[in-house]
Amino acid sequence: MESLRFVLPQSEIPTHWYNVVADMPSAPLPPLGPDGKPATPEQMGAIFPMAILEQEMSSERWIPIPQPVREIYRLWRPSPLVRAARLEEMLGTPAKIYYKNESVSPAGSHKPNTAVAQAYYNRQAGIKRITTETGAGQWGCSMALAGQMFGLDVRVYMVKVSYQQKPYRRSMMQTWGAEVFASPSNLTQTGREALSRDPDNMGSLGLAISEAVEEAASRADTNYALGSVLNHVALHQTIIGLETRKQLELAGDWPDVVFAPCGGGSSFAGLAFPFIADNASGGRNGKSVRLVAVEPTSCPSLTKGDYAYDFGDASGFTPLMKMYTLGHDFMPPGIHAGGLRYHGASPLVSQLYHEGLIEAMGVPQLATFEAGVMFARAEGIIPAPESNHAIRAAVDEALRCKESGEAKTILFNLTGHGHFDMASYDRYFSGELEDFSYPEAAIKESLQHLPRFG
Amino acid sequence: MESLRFVLPQSEIPTHWYNVVADMPSAPLPPLGPDGKPATPEQMGAIFPMAILEQEMSSERWIPIPQPVREIYRLWRPSPLVRAARLEEMLGTPAKIYYKNESVSPAGSHKPNTAVAQAYYNRQAGIKRITTETGAGQWGCSMALAGQMFGLDVRVYMVKVSYQQKPYRRSMMQTWGAEVFASPSNLTQTGREALSRDPDNMGSLGLAISEAVEEAASRADTNYALGSVLNHVALHQTIIGLETRKQLELAGDWPDVVFAPCGGGSSFAGLAFPFIADNASGGRNGKSVRLVAVEPTSCPSLTKGDYAYDFGDASGFTPLMKMYTLGHDFMPPGIHAGGLRYHGASPLVSQLYHEGLIEAMGVPQLATFEAGVMFARAEGIIPAPESNHAIRAAVDEALRCKESGEAKTILFNLTGHGHFDMASYDRYFSGELEDFSYPEAAIKESLQHLPRFG
Repeated sequence: MESLRFVLPQSEIPTHWYNVVADMPSAPLPPLGPDGKPATPEQMGAIFPMAILEQEMSSERWIPIPQPVREIYRLWRPSPLVRAARLEEMLGTPAKIYYKNESVSPAGSHKPNTAVAQAYYNRQAGIKRITTETGAGQWGCSMALAGQMFGLDVRVYMVKVSYQQKPYRRSMMQTWGAEVFASPSNLTQTGREALSRDPDNMGSLGLAISEAVEEAASRADTNYALGSVLNHVALHQTIIGLETRKQLELAGDWPDVVFAPCGGGSSFAGLAFPFIADNASGGRNGKSVRLVAVEPTSCPSLTKGDYAYDFGDASGFTPLMKMYTLGHDFMPPGIHAGGLRYHGASPLVSQLYHEGLIEAMGVPQLATFEAGVMFARAEGIIPAPESNHAIRAAVDEALRCKESGEAKTILFNLTGHGHFDMASYDRYFSGELEDFSYPEAAIKESLQHLPRFG
Repeated sequence: MESLRFVLPQSEIPTHWYNVVADMPSAPLPPLGPDGKPATPEQMGAIFPMAILEQEMSSERWIPIPQPVREIYRLWRPSPLVRAARLEEMLGTPAKIYYKNESVSPAGSHKPNTAVAQAYYNRQAGIKRITTETGAGQWGCSMALAGQMFGLDVRVYMVKVSYQQKPYRRSMMQTWGAEVFASPSNLTQTGREALSRDPDNMGSLGLAISEAVEEAASRADTNYALGSVLNHVALHQTIIGLETRKQLELAGDWPDVVFAPCGGGSSFAGLAFPFIADNASGGRNGKSVRLVAVEPTSCPSLTKGDYAYDFGDASGFTPLMKMYTLGHDFMPPGIHAGGLRYHGASPLVSQLYHEGLIEAMGVPQLATFEAGVMFARAEGIIPAPESNHAIRAAVDEALRCKESGEAKTILFNLTGHGHFDMASYDRYFSGELEDFSYPEAAIKESLQHLPRFG
């Protein structure tokens, strides 16, 4: 009986993260302060520990994973690489399809890979509490879990509409010991002002970020943690691709093409970046791996955005970053892949895309759910709506192989499970799920508001 | 870095299930028909395929697992055996604690181990559709998943109150292609009669069983599937303990005591029965493994029930089985471990308990949630309320070791995750969760209604 899952022993948990900066054709463009000059570590030191800022700026190829972080990774890592043999059969494709199963973490997604590292470095720096924001709840859960592992208090500002609609994500965070507040709250100046303007304000991710950052900046024992976009987050996620490379060797295979969902960009970076090292050194047997970021057609930062300096948050609070952006005040349609509703893409992902080292594509919402249901019926696991974007792309590639007769090897990132997204599946089955049209006018409008310098 | 997870390669998925009947001091007592005479295979053949009835009556020690069943098991098996090192540290115990993680199946529990086998045998017998019932939804999900894997239509009668309160379990079943009906429905005579008596009838497990059985009995292409209690279900679940034994050898360890939650008894049977073979042949190094079934104090069939012939369902529709029972019309308090709210225990588990080969204990609801939260904070995974019963027992044993200084090895069955039970955790955190008192009067009353013959 052929093995479908390729599992590494825990002794094979990577000892180093891979820093793609070392293999980029040109150095990353720095973040800029409000004055248009490069942001200094001192400016960012108010909310991040120095070890993380060093990683943010590093160009070292290999960065050691601290032993206590590897020890926590043991709770669910190495995650399995799985051959989707039943999906191949269902599609009748000659292609081979593999997926890296990041849904196996206790929080249900890849997010704890960086949350655990960030908790560790903050703990090392003497920090007692972490503030962060969460929308749908994936990141808040991951930070709650990670804080518990290193004895940090975690305070999560959860967008009020999600706080009310997703009580179970909130209960998960509480199970791991975190405090969760509906944002806007009356705990911060930002929150109080928002509530005084509109007592019924249901919150936004931008507002929740502002509240979390305000609390972190105002207390010496408190730092802030972000779950995507930044370089150190992408770095920590490379453990996904590093494990995958070893597992592919076990399977005796190598991908022609890699797909991962792309919102802020951390799950794409995590799986794809380690293959850039291979491509940079000429590929395997002279063959480069195609690396494809898959985004929603309704929030198409890479495929339809400008490559420009823009704020990381909606309210213009963060440093400016050079990235593909739809404009920081672009409000994406209410798609169910909440983790992909971000106006920009990570600066590293953006620069690699700009320089032609990676590709990007958009897929519409209904087609992603169709692919997710197909995957669930073939492979069992019910995927997160974010993951369905990568699955759609993989399925379409496999169907093209069926047409052409090519036996390509396809790899995708199953970034999380859909156990807390069943309401979205319900809407899909009842025919209530919409396909949003491409929000051309809204993007055009918000791109008018890009900061003018930089 | 020490390994905490012991993972077998897929080639080590067991080739045979273990039938504990071969090692029982006396033969199992047969089920009886309504006339008090042993039920015949012909009587049961209306709703079960012959291959399953043969397993139900077999006394062969090893029963081959069909290759197509092993191939589906590959989607998540072998499941990990995990050393709960952080829990040990949190408790400050010299004991070693291991858990078998059955929460990794796509449906989130051990239930698919038998659902997949039952789907296969029904498919082999030419059956086109399966009917079953579900309360909280664990079993319905598992049967929906298994039916999809073998191309069977699955129709689930879901207790109406759960159908309304647990829409996400329903969406999961639909994602796997099953049809789900609120029970009582107007699809069966039983359902129509119940609705005509009371149009607002919110259903019960007994009623849902009756609807599923009625449909299966009335159609030649349709069979019925049950998720616990019966011998063949216990048999299929022994894959849990068989894998665990191999994994303990990898870990270089052997348990002193094994805990598993016990409702109908299938998860206990699954983990514990294979150790009965060891105990029967004198134990390892002359040491027997203590095997402890953990039940809720509010539904204490083994610890407070009578050992008697009783119906398997509330309405007296099934054959009579000799088992520890609280009386078939005992209505357990509304504890959140829905899978343990059953009036009896599997006949095999009951007989082994009666003959002193296994032990049983009861734990109260609040203490189980306290242990579950402790486990989640140490090990990450949020357990199902059913699993929390085994965790409570394991934690208490580890704390006794702390007192005595003994370095025992403790093993328990993590039967499922709690992703669809967060409302129960919510109630626990908000202080709304009750500890029910021992329902002595209700049990005394229902034991009066035991059938008088047999």
